[in-house]
Order: sequence, then structure tokens, then C-alpha cells
Amino acid sequence: MPHFQSDPLDERHDGAKISLPSSKIAFSTDSFVINPLFFPGGDIGKLAICGVVNDLAMCGALPTYLSVAFIIEEGLPIETLGKIVSSMAATARENHVQIVTGDTKVVEKGKGDGLYISVAGIGQIVSKSDVGPKSINPGDVIIVNGDIGRHGISVLAFREGMDFETSIESDCASLLEQVKCLLENNIEVHCMRDLTRGGLAAALGELSQQSGFNFEISEELIPISEPVKSACEIMGFDPVNVACEGRFVCFVPEKDSSKALEIMSTFSSTGFNPAKIGKVDSQTQKLVKIANKIGTQRIMEIPYGELLPRIC
Amino acid sequence: MPHFQSDPLDERHDGAKISLPSSKIAFSTDSFVINPLFFPGGDIGKLAICGVVNDLAMCGALPTYLSVAFIIEEGLPIETLGKIVSSMAATARENHVQIVTGDTKVVEKGKGDGLYISVAGIGQIVSKSDVGPKSINPGDVIIVNGDIGRHGISVLAFREGMDFETSIESDCASLLEQVKCLLENNIEVHCMRDLTRGGLAAALGELSQQSGFNFEISEELIPISEPVKSACEIMGFDPVNVACEGRFVCFVPEKDSSKALEIMSTFSSTGFNPAKIGKVDSQTQKLVKIANKIGTQRIMEIPYGELLPRIC
Repeated sequence: MPHFQSDPLDERHDGAKISLPSSKIAFSTDSFVINPLFFPGGDIGKLAICGVVNDLAMCGALPTYLSVAFIIEEGLPIETLGKIVSSMAATARENHVQIVTGDTKVVEKGKGDGLYISVAGIGQIVSKSDVGPKSINPGDVIIVNGDIGRHGISVLAFREGMDFETSIESDCASLLEQVKCLLENNIEVHCMRDLTRGGLAAALGELSQQSGFNFEISEELIPISEPVKSACEIMGFDPVNVACEGRFVCFVPEKDSSKALEIMSTFSSTGFNPAKIGKVDSQTQKLVKIANKIGTQRIMEIPYGELLPRIC
Repeated sequence: MPHFQSDPLDERHDGAKISLPSSKIAFSTDSFVINPLFFPGGDIGKLAICGVVNDLAMCGALPTYLSVAFIIEEGLPIETLGKIVSSMAATARENHVQIVTGDTKVVEKGKGDGLYISVAGIGQIVSKSDVGPKSINPGDVIIVNGDIGRHGISVLAFREGMDFETSIESDCASLLEQVKCLLENNIEVHCMRDLTRGGLAAALGELSQQSGFNFEISEELIPISEPVKSACEIMGFDPVNVACEGRFVCFVPEKDSSKALEIMSTFSSTGFNPAKIGKVDSQTQKLVKIANKIGTQRIMEIPYGELLPRIC
């Protein structure tokens, strides 16, 4: 309560009574079960707020209100909870979003894993046209806003106690400012999707299914940092399947693609390298085709099961 | 997905894009960690939907959209999940509320307890005046809509394998229709609160704190069924601390109290006995005073810790 100050929360009623400036909203939810709770580049609290803020941003919406629900395992030190809640409050402030309602449950030792957090968010839709899979058109350019795989590799390496020469930090970050900037500059954004569980392969595979079109991707254009590439080789992962928490793909018409890339570049720290990685084809088999350097094409599949470790 | 059919969900985007008929909304969330998942009179799915629908109703709002997030422990049989999800869908339909967005996470065996569900809900505020703790006035009559303690006792008895002569069923139910009926009949509802964790004592204790006034309660007016009374004696519980999931207290001015009671009675099955149990005093020590049959007064305390078992 002291961390999440807001008027609706202060009333301490069964729910928050709030006003929205417009009736067109986006509504999204995610549960966060990441282990460990703290990882290089973030913690479950920052991840939880960024995760829902990003889901709303992907709908062309600015987040306005959040709810948070905690499932705490008996024995979680109160300072650990304090650190996480403080990180949530800071991340919410940075994203100009209020935490207005919440819930706390405690389960017995052995019935949880320290802490699980569920967040739901309401956002105001500000995009002029509909941003979603159904707006994807043949000819659209597919842009990714930076190098992929940092989050998943950083968490897995940290969990397994692996030590690489170059430390890999999670890409966990809010995408709100980038998305706002794209929309404010009248980029005709057809669709956006953040690369969380299942990474680039899952996002593209699902969007191809949902839009009804094939996508053509060039493997060599996908930005991947050297440390992530090496770690993936050692750990046996394909980087396209590895989760990110601050990366998204954006579908824009050819005419806007260079300007969109330029805008995304202004948000990238050195080496993040946003890139055009492919385009939407007019064929309708709903396949994601990926071509390597020598031109050989294969199908990029949506990863399932064991390929989706608990990293969010 | 097949159970929760709705257009926004069908789009399968990162969030649901929805429209609200008005800008005054209520927003609430709860996590449900009840053990066992099925209990006499309900299951975790029905409980989760009713819980959030009731929280919104307590704000004077009609629920319009829900989000659901599942944390599933590895090994939960898919039929069990199916039964619960089907119960959620049915309860949502009964309450005219759409499930528009969601999330599913799986945690390793031993890191959960079968299934945890987090639900968040958006509702349209329909009450003309503000319904909340700050609207409580001295002189308000306090009404409870039925006999207390069924949910907690039913779950605890079932969990402990206790067998009573008369079986006790949970009171788990939606309060939406009752609340709608009170508001449509122009009952001047000042505040409502459902009697979940901590039961009547927690609800009254918190509302007394939040409103700033003392409450005067008559113990003999509190409706408690004989089976619940006996079970409480055997198990060592005070019924006023036991959770309900279909009971609420309602604060109305004297002039509307009989009509409110009459309306609540139409929603009660035989023996539920809604009742006026006390009134708001003008004194401001923020105490809930409870008088027994022979007139002795004691303070009703908000229960903590061990008195709050995992029954929701």
C-alpha cells in the first residue's frame, strides 16, 4: 500500500472507481512466475509491469490503470517483497500508469515458488487505425526493434550458474515510449507483437496464422549479439525461440518502413540494432519462411513445450 | 479458448480491444488459491468469476469484461482444468460478462497446488451516488443478505474430511442481481461489502476504520444456521470470522431499510434470512461494538493470520 499510492487505492474498497477519458480501451493480463525473482537487468516486479504495459502498447494503447495480485509463498522474506514492490512502483511511475486495485494471497510453504504476480491493465487506444493481426497486408515490412534473445539467455544462464566472458543482461524494458513515438509520427502501424515466450518464432508464427499470409524472413538480417549467439550454441537453443522482454516486431507499409526504423534506432542503446528482417507475402499458406545466407529456405515453426522454460 | 468465446478473445492479440458505454468504471482483481479445487456448492472457477463480479457489484457497478490468468501446476489433469474452465464460462454467461483476455503459465510439480486463478474485471458504474466507505453516515442501518459462514465451514469441513449430520454447502454465488435490484428500486445504498476473507468481522472492522464511525451490532440478530453454529463450536471458530462467498453487508438510511430487506428476501432461498443486524453510530472511535442477548457489549476485532485459512 505505501508503495502504490493512488486515490482509488486509498479508498480501500472492493474495487477502484475510476474515470476514462475515452471509451475505446485495451485490456490485458499476464501472470509472472519467473525463477529467479531477481536476474541480471531486472526483477519479477519490473518484468510484471513492463509486460502488461507492453501488451497494451502492442494494441496501440497508452496504459492508464493497473491491477496487481500477489500469490506469496509462506516464508518469502518481507524485504524481498519490499524490493519487488518498490521496483513495480518505480516502473509504473516511469510509464505514467497508476496501480489502483490489488489482492494478496499467501499459500503454504511448498505450494508456490516465492512469489507469483498477476497484473491486469487498462489502456486508452490512441492509434487512429486498428492495430492487430487482421490489419497485416501483403507487402508490409517486418521490423524488429533490437537484437533478440537477451532476456531468456540471461535468465537461463543465471539460473544454471553459467558464467560467460561477457555478461548478458535481460532486455526487460518498457516499449511504451517507442510505440508512442511511432504513432505520434503518423507511422501507419498495421500490427505489433512483443517477443515474449517462444521469442521471434512464436510471434511470427502466430501472426502468420492470424493474418492468413506467409512471411518471408532473412536469417542474416535478424539482429543477435555475439554473446547471445555463443550462449545459444553452448546451451542448445535456437535464438529465434528465446524470449525477449523488450523487443517487438512491427508491421508497416514499405513507404513508412525507413522512418519507422529511424525512430526505433533513437531508442536503441549501442549495439541493439533495430532491423528490417523480412516482409509479408501475398501467399496464404500461413507459413513463416526463413532463408539463410546461401538462400536455402526452411519453415520457422512455433516452439512448444520444453522449448518454453519458465522465464517470465 | 473454446469455452471462453468472445470476439476480442478470438482476435488472439496481446490484449483485447473493447468499447465501454460510459467512462465511469470500476476495476477490481482477485487471485484464487482455494484448496480443494472442488467443494460442496462450487469450485474454484465459479468462485473466481463470482468473486470479481461481486467486488464490482459492491462498487455499484455491472461487470462488463473480465480477464483470466491461470497458473497451472505440472500434472493437473486436463479434464480437471476443462471442468473448471467450463464452470467459469457458465458463471460468466449467467452474469452477462465477457471473458476477453487471458494468460496461462505452467509451473513445475511442487511449485503450485494444482491451479491458481487470477481474475480482473471492469464494470460500468450504474449507482447514481457514490457507493463506498466514505458515503457511510451515522444512523445508517446495516443489513446482511443472509446467514453467514457457510462457505468457510463447508470448505474446511470438506478438507478435513469432517462429516456432519446436515451437510453444509458453500454460499458461493453472484450478488449481481440483488445489487442491481436494490439500485433499480432507488434504494439509497451508501456502501456494500462482501463478506469474504475474515468474514463479517473483517468487513465491519475495515468499514468502521474507513468510514470513521462506530458501528453497533446485535449478536442475536446475526443470521447463522444451526449446522454452521455447531460446526463452528466443534472446530473452534467464531462464525463472524468465517468467510462467505455470497453474502454482503449493505448500509442504507433508515427510511430505505425495510424496502431493502424486502428486496434481499426475494433472493434468499428458505432459511437464508437476510437481517438488519445493527446501525452506524455518530461516535468516531472507529470501533465495532457487538452486544449479546443480555446486553453485554464487546469489541469485534478484525481477524488476522491463522484465522484466515486458504478458503478463497
